[in-house]
Amino acid sequence: MSDRDSANERAAQRIVTAEPQLESVRPARDVVPGLDRQTLFHSGPPVEWEAMIDPLQGALIGAACYEGWATTEQEAIELLSTGSIHTAPNTDHSAAAPLAGVISPSMPVFVVRDDLSGEAVYSNLNEGLGRVLRFGAYDEAVLERLDWMEKTVGPVLATVLDEVGPIALDPLVATALARGDECHNRNEAASSLLVDEFAPALIRADVDEKNAASVLEFITDNPHFFLNLSIAAAFARLQAAVGVENSTVLTRVATNGTEFGIQLSGWPKEWFTARSPSPSGNFLNGYGPDDSAPVVGDSLVTEATGFGGFALAGAPAITEYLGISPAACQEATEQMYQIAVTEHDRFRIPQLGDRGVPVGIDAVSVVETGIEPVFNAGLAHKQRGQGQVGAALARMPLAAFESAVESVISSEK
Amino acid sequence: MSDRDSANERAAQRIVTAEPQLESVRPARDVVPGLDRQTLFHSGPPVEWEAMIDPLQGALIGAACYEGWATTEQEAIELLSTGSIHTAPNTDHSAAAPLAGVISPSMPVFVVRDDLSGEAVYSNLNEGLGRVLRFGAYDEAVLERLDWMEKTVGPVLATVLDEVGPIALDPLVATALARGDECHNRNEAASSLLVDEFAPALIRADVDEKNAASVLEFITDNPHFFLNLSIAAAFARLQAAVGVENSTVLTRVATNGTEFGIQLSGWPKEWFTARSPSPSGNFLNGYGPDDSAPVVGDSLVTEATGFGGFALAGAPAITEYLGISPAACQEATEQMYQIAVTEHDRFRIPQLGDRGVPVGIDAVSVVETGIEPVFNAGLAHKQRGQGQVGAALARMPLAAFESAVESVISSEK
Repeated sequence: MSDRDSANERAAQRIVTAEPQLESVRPARDVVPGLDRQTLFHSGPPVEWEAMIDPLQGALIGAACYEGWATTEQEAIELLSTGSIHTAPNTDHSAAAPLAGVISPSMPVFVVRDDLSGEAVYSNLNEGLGRVLRFGAYDEAVLERLDWMEKTVGPVLATVLDEVGPIALDPLVATALARGDECHNRNEAASSLLVDEFAPALIRADVDEKNAASVLEFITDNPHFFLNLSIAAAFARLQAAVGVENSTVLTRVATNGTEFGIQLSGWPKEWFTARSPSPSGNFLNGYGPDDSAPVVGDSLVTEATGFGGFALAGAPAITEYLGISPAACQEATEQMYQIAVTEHDRFRIPQLGDRGVPVGIDAVSVVETGIEPVFNAGLAHKQRGQGQVGAALARMPLAAFESAVESVISSEK
Repeated sequence: MSDRDSANERAAQRIVTAEPQLESVRPARDVVPGLDRQTLFHSGPPVEWEAMIDPLQGALIGAACYEGWATTEQEAIELLSTGSIHTAPNTDHSAAAPLAGVISPSMPVFVVRDDLSGEAVYSNLNEGLGRVLRFGAYDEAVLERLDWMEKTVGPVLATVLDEVGPIALDPLVATALARGDECHNRNEAASSLLVDEFAPALIRADVDEKNAASVLEFITDNPHFFLNLSIAAAFARLQAAVGVENSTVLTRVATNGTEFGIQLSGWPKEWFTARSPSPSGNFLNGYGPDDSAPVVGDSLVTEATGFGGFALAGAPAITEYLGISPAACQEATEQMYQIAVTEHDRFRIPQLGDRGVPVGIDAVSVVETGIEPVFNAGLAHKQRGQGQVGAALARMPLAAFESAVESVISSEK
């Protein structure tokens, strides 16, 4: 076994053995490092205001208004474009979030801690589908929902978790896989499992009954509620694998809609990028490929830990949402075993005779085989303010992997 | 299309179009017809005390003690064997229940009404796994649990359902199928979905908080909780199909552990029987085939409506519980299309490209093809008082179908 192979095996095993726990819900400003001034975090690698895609700009405008830093769209744009509001990537600050992925100081966030390393990571709470901040919408209804989430959902879940937490996420994820979730674009079984955990505690907790019931219904009405927890858990797993010398396993993978980027375990903090892809998929409400922005989000961390597109074989009920066949689901997972370092010992796919999901994307294997890793993606309207237009099975661009491997090999010389 | 074919098509369509709703929970004596005197109902066709298998006797003994009609096992046997306690089949009295299936007057029961016909059917509440009445156990812990279910679970669920009911069961079942349940031996996704429905209502309802939380945990701790509702829903669907002239579609199918029996739509109330089968399967805790009683229960109504063994292709995660391969799951469903009259338009299997489950078992097709319908079964210890020993994928005995078809054809002459 080469140095690189054994390094990759070690990195992949760290992904497998991490133990992410949902510890609490807190206001972002109290826990997320670097969010204590006029700052907004976003998904993907770093990107300047002018280079941002429209839906990411829309989400930042919405967050600036939600925080009360601006009262109009124009004012928000002024503050953001001049740098008066600072922006920075989630994944450089222990956070990860879906789509535009904007996290602002007042938002409640999940605190997910790897029980093995003791390190915490953060994600915001899922707003539901359609016209929501993460898809670039920022109208009054979006901001009102964010306000209610801050004032009601956050505190209610904080109270419950302070009583019953931490909740180990691995058992929920393993069960959800057996119930047809791939834990990226399909999280409905996991969301129900979370309700199973929360509901008895909510009844016992000292919270207003009406608030408790409305928070529970907010969760039961949103089949994607677990998504942000799935992302946080995946990010915690990747975080555990950062810094294994010589390992070419992906420990960051995210897109801001302009640039798609990866980082390798052995070369921390170094982004290797390519243009964000614009996949075709299943479009909603008469929308088509021309209406869609390129893919954006930190949620590709789920694929890098064996979920999402990598676990598609276990989620045949997702086909309509993604616009693909059940056969394509099976093929996607089977192909990913060729570029993954190992198979998970606890996260298994019943449809494949309980074979473990493929874990740990080796950038060298990607370049050598030419197999671009798959991922599942929600698609935002290319114009800010619009919301979701569809979903797709996409491929991570080979160019970023080639750039990473080239850099790594030249550094080895 | 022959008279029989069109009759079978009509019967199968009645199964498909029925709309079972969970209306309420009530004490059995208040709602189940014929349970108002010293009577116990059981699963399967009629059977005398002496001919009963041990676990069915055990469940009846337990129910007699639970009702306070007897204080010792010996006293209960005396009353049961002399007919002082009357016994009769569930399915002759608008009820159906799993395994021994004993329903006694004080037990809370689900009231499930077909919204199309207005007719109600009943099932008891699931106790959990292991040493429970329906598997023939009747020790102190079993009776105490039944008492708690009567005094706490029943009233709490009654209050909730009186506020939010009726709950349409079809959407839960359709979603559970997409989440890997076959709605007979695997009901865990459906049980979670029920919690999603109950929990917000429970928080709002005027019930003691501790009781509400403990009832919710009783449900979240029991992945089989939905089973009895699945059976009631299936029985309501079959009930809708009773009495279609010339139809050889099964509208009753049940076993008391001694005799397996079926009834055909066009010949209501006439049981055709054969010996109850003793399948081999997956045995728990070191038990083996020699420890198991023949299969017992009314739960085969789920197969007769397209679930259980008929929907196995959608439930690959069940393989360990049943001791079979994922390939066997797929084969079982595919074979059942050959003896089923139609395919369901709403209950679909993602693994089969959203093909509808096979609905309506035609006894003539069974005899002509020689294909015995599959069913999934929990296996009880052959000695009363012991509980569950395993689970199996089993086959309904051809002899009962041959007897039915012979009788029908001679009546047509």
